[in-house]
Amino acid sequence: MTYRAPVDQIAFILNHIVPFQKLAETELFAEATTETVDAILNEAGKMADNELAPLNRVGDLTPARLENGKLRSSPGFDAGFRAIADGGWISLASDPDYGGMGLPQALNMAVAEMMSGACLSLQLNPLLTQGQIDALQHHASDEMKALYLPKLNSGEWSGTMNLTEPGAGSDVGALTTKAEPNGDGTYKITGQKIFITWGDSDVTENVCHAVLARLPDGAKGTKGISLFMVPKFIPDDDGNPGVANSLKVVSLEHKMGIHGSPTCVMSYEDATGWLIGKEHGGMAAMFTMMNAARLGVGVQGVGVAEAALQQAVAYAIERNQFGPIIRHADVRRMLATARAEVFVARSICLATAVSTDMARATDDAECAARAAFLTPIAKAHGTDVGCRVADMNIQVHGGMGFIEETGAAQYLRDVRITPIYEGTNGIQAMDLVGRKLSDGGEAATRLLDEVMDTAKAAQGDFPDLAGEVWRAAENLLEATQAMVDRDLQDRFAGAVPYLDAFARVLGAWFHLRAAQTGDAGRVTLARIYITRILPRYAADLIEAQAGLEDLGAITDEQLAGAFGA
Amino acid sequence: MTYRAPVDQIAFILNHIVPFQKLAETELFAEATTETVDAILNEAGKMADNELAPLNRVGDLTPARLENGKLRSSPGFDAGFRAIADGGWISLASDPDYGGMGLPQALNMAVAEMMSGACLSLQLNPLLTQGQIDALQHHASDEMKALYLPKLNSGEWSGTMNLTEPGAGSDVGALTTKAEPNGDGTYKITGQKIFITWGDSDVTENVCHAVLARLPDGAKGTKGISLFMVPKFIPDDDGNPGVANSLKVVSLEHKMGIHGSPTCVMSYEDATGWLIGKEHGGMAAMFTMMNAARLGVGVQGVGVAEAALQQAVAYAIERNQFGPIIRHADVRRMLATARAEVFVARSICLATAVSTDMARATDDAECAARAAFLTPIAKAHGTDVGCRVADMNIQVHGGMGFIEETGAAQYLRDVRITPIYEGTNGIQAMDLVGRKLSDGGEAATRLLDEVMDTAKAAQGDFPDLAGEVWRAAENLLEATQAMVDRDLQDRFAGAVPYLDAFARVLGAWFHLRAAQTGDAGRVTLARIYITRILPRYAADLIEAQAGLEDLGAITDEQLAGAFGA
Repeated sequence: MTYRAPVDQIAFILNHIVPFQKLAETELFAEATTETVDAILNEAGKMADNELAPLNRVGDLTPARLENGKLRSSPGFDAGFRAIADGGWISLASDPDYGGMGLPQALNMAVAEMMSGACLSLQLNPLLTQGQIDALQHHASDEMKALYLPKLNSGEWSGTMNLTEPGAGSDVGALTTKAEPNGDGTYKITGQKIFITWGDSDVTENVCHAVLARLPDGAKGTKGISLFMVPKFIPDDDGNPGVANSLKVVSLEHKMGIHGSPTCVMSYEDATGWLIGKEHGGMAAMFTMMNAARLGVGVQGVGVAEAALQQAVAYAIERNQFGPIIRHADVRRMLATARAEVFVARSICLATAVSTDMARATDDAECAARAAFLTPIAKAHGTDVGCRVADMNIQVHGGMGFIEETGAAQYLRDVRITPIYEGTNGIQAMDLVGRKLSDGGEAATRLLDEVMDTAKAAQGDFPDLAGEVWRAAENLLEATQAMVDRDLQDRFAGAVPYLDAFARVLGAWFHLRAAQTGDAGRVTLARIYITRILPRYAADLIEAQAGLEDLGAITDEQLAGAFGA
Repeated sequence: MTYRAPVDQIAFILNHIVPFQKLAETELFAEATTETVDAILNEAGKMADNELAPLNRVGDLTPARLENGKLRSSPGFDAGFRAIADGGWISLASDPDYGGMGLPQALNMAVAEMMSGACLSLQLNPLLTQGQIDALQHHASDEMKALYLPKLNSGEWSGTMNLTEPGAGSDVGALTTKAEPNGDGTYKITGQKIFITWGDSDVTENVCHAVLARLPDGAKGTKGISLFMVPKFIPDDDGNPGVANSLKVVSLEHKMGIHGSPTCVMSYEDATGWLIGKEHGGMAAMFTMMNAARLGVGVQGVGVAEAALQQAVAYAIERNQFGPIIRHADVRRMLATARAEVFVARSICLATAVSTDMARATDDAECAARAAFLTPIAKAHGTDVGCRVADMNIQVHGGMGFIEETGAAQYLRDVRITPIYEGTNGIQAMDLVGRKLSDGGEAATRLLDEVMDTAKAAQGDFPDLAGEVWRAAENLLEATQAMVDRDLQDRFAGAVPYLDAFARVLGAWFHLRAAQTGDAGRVTLARIYITRILPRYAADLIEAQAGLEDLGAITDEQLAGAFGA
């Protein structure tokens, strides 16, 4: 089982499918030339293949553990993390003023995909650290930036996000962790947080916790929440880790997967914290962290999907049952579907990242709106594809897929968290039909107009495929208008299938663009997607528009199985 | 987390959806009266709830293990198995001449669903024992029947199926295990078998292995295979376990799930065996075993789906995030979809069982053809629904779904084997479009004619729903004819989506029948299925008819991700 970072596949998308090359024309990203990008992708690919992939199984078999309250990470994770940090892979997209390389998020996400395909458990550490870097960059004081960012960018220190509490998951505003001013600019933080990924680490010398808490005068709900920096060791005057803060890891969770990633219950008792951003401005800072992390999680789905698909293809070539099973029609159907879907999920994620970059580089509101619109789709679809492909890999392996030694089961066990964390996929879909359609469908319409433009342009070369794509985009446009006109609860009832339909239409668009390169294999793959997978959008749209009525009419008792007859 | 056997839900289907009551009109099943059935379902339900459900988590946490070559099953499994055996639940459908109760398979499958929902790992033991009972009943000599059947029916002994070898999974004919005549009517069996469920047991005093092997004059492939009885302890003259046979458990597999069910690598070295049925007639006997087991595995999917759905509903009622999450539109959509799908999967399994029973009771060829046609659908759809609902349960639990303590992950880890064993779902679909359509589509057409009859009859009460169902059945009928007219490889390429479409249309049919009872909840659930889930058949049929061309055109290298551009 050898993972090979999909450098060429990513480069193809950056060069042909998403407008990455336009970034190099901006002042901000002038250095993101084709040569730089190629060099970076190749270098990151080698690191992922050689340093990270060998750790994946190790982390599953030898989970992180607590020893006298201290975290011991899985064997080899220390060296793996060093390879990430020393290669400069944490700071790829960070501000050069604080030790970053200032390259586009799109490139950062490409690297993140390769790292997560190689070893998801370990990659979570830099992913969350990057989320914190982003939040500090946008919201912290210059002093705090100067103290923390260089250490986080270099990987000397790592960062976490402390949002969830037992009673506050999706409903973050229900949190009870308290913050009290000490009068000297610091705050006392007291409370318990759960599901804290890499809540402690022996691969970095300090762990910086970004903790959501409520000040005494904080309003109920999300409006009264503030964000605090609560370091494991309080930096001394030289900025080095000093005295231990009043916080600890209470326990680690026993999880279905990502065993190499410690998921901590954290306890803060009068811990010392520093405000990040404004009082009661925690949600804004949290959204900065989460937006980056959301796309990052979508990318994780793509990474695991690619790894699982590679394993499935390799096994299908080697396994003989009435000849190599890769020659069997149904196995081929499964593999081809997965290959087409991985291309789509990867393209959506990279398109999202490029929109984010372009918005930053040009301050263009349309680009920002597109990035915002695409983010929940990238997260949900990327992770759905991750689960589907990991599941398919098990099925292709037959009985061997159920045996842990092959590693096929691990991919599913690991990736299964991705549709849940950083906002469940249901929440992503609600964000899409709620907030993201609150512009009256403008961002959606702009996207679909481009899809239809591509379809028109492809009419000559691929009349049947182009026709299908055009028709799908038109139907989705109509459904979008209908969605905008409905009340929010009816939209929510159809949110997930609406998101699915949108992802399929975007997928068909990207495949059509790939076919336009003229490469025979790309044309075949586009045909497979557009004739086999795209048509499912129609049923998605039927369900998207079904509304709340029948779901409201069925009772809880009936859902539990108790009917009158 | 408390599983409650769905006695009323099963009774509703037997009373209103499938023609179970016609069985009591036959001579063979005259005892299967409504009173008997009610008593049996209630008794079995109590046993499942009280004796088996408490073992489910225990088996996951404390897997079966080998101790000096001896199997030690999970704590409490011994008592659990006794409850099953002593309740007469193994022999429910067995021949009364050998200690069975002679009741219909439909009832047996209803009980099997409850047992598998309560504790899948343990239920596998009686399921495989029943498969062996069936094979002996049909193929063994009277002497062998007299020796083995009473012990198997009483649960003093258990039975296994030894088919798979490292190089012979779906391709059973590739097996290399040898059988040599000893000249005294016995045979020497030598070879290695893998994936042997409950290949050893400390809950029964003997384990009877039904082993596929090839005689010296056996042809290559499946035609040269014979089936042998190879008991762990050779019965003495009194029929009691005597000297140990020359076989052993080499190791147990480390699996993704069903940890309480030991999956054994078995080694036979000049072990003593007795021929079951005719020389080179092993495949026929194996198909008898597998046919019963196939339906049984579909039922396992239903059992776990019901258990997982009950857990999801209970959690959604209790968990508050902006109010109880069961009030959220998307959570409700997931739960309602699952409830509608569980009803469908259960109905298909019970319809299959009733057809099998009716075929036996009346010797009617149409009933037999229907049972044969429905079996692969029952297996594949039942297990697909099992996986979908277990996955949904994790999603409804959010982060808690990924934590092993809740048990949500276990349902998915356990049920994930069911689309694989007893013939992968891909193989089921190939059986459906290959062998089961080799009658020119006659069995399919008869079924769809009945669907259309129901739709016509429901036209007055539910015009919109009936119209949808009628249209879907008509389209499926056309697609079936088109399928019959294609060559086998093109059929295989569309086998899985064809099976899916058929399951959806059957599902809509059963829901329409449920709605015809007039119960308001049933009508709502039927509406949910027919307006939200049924429409997906259209895309299934598009893919079913897409043929092999594009799948043949894409290369292995492209599937692996290597394109020209």
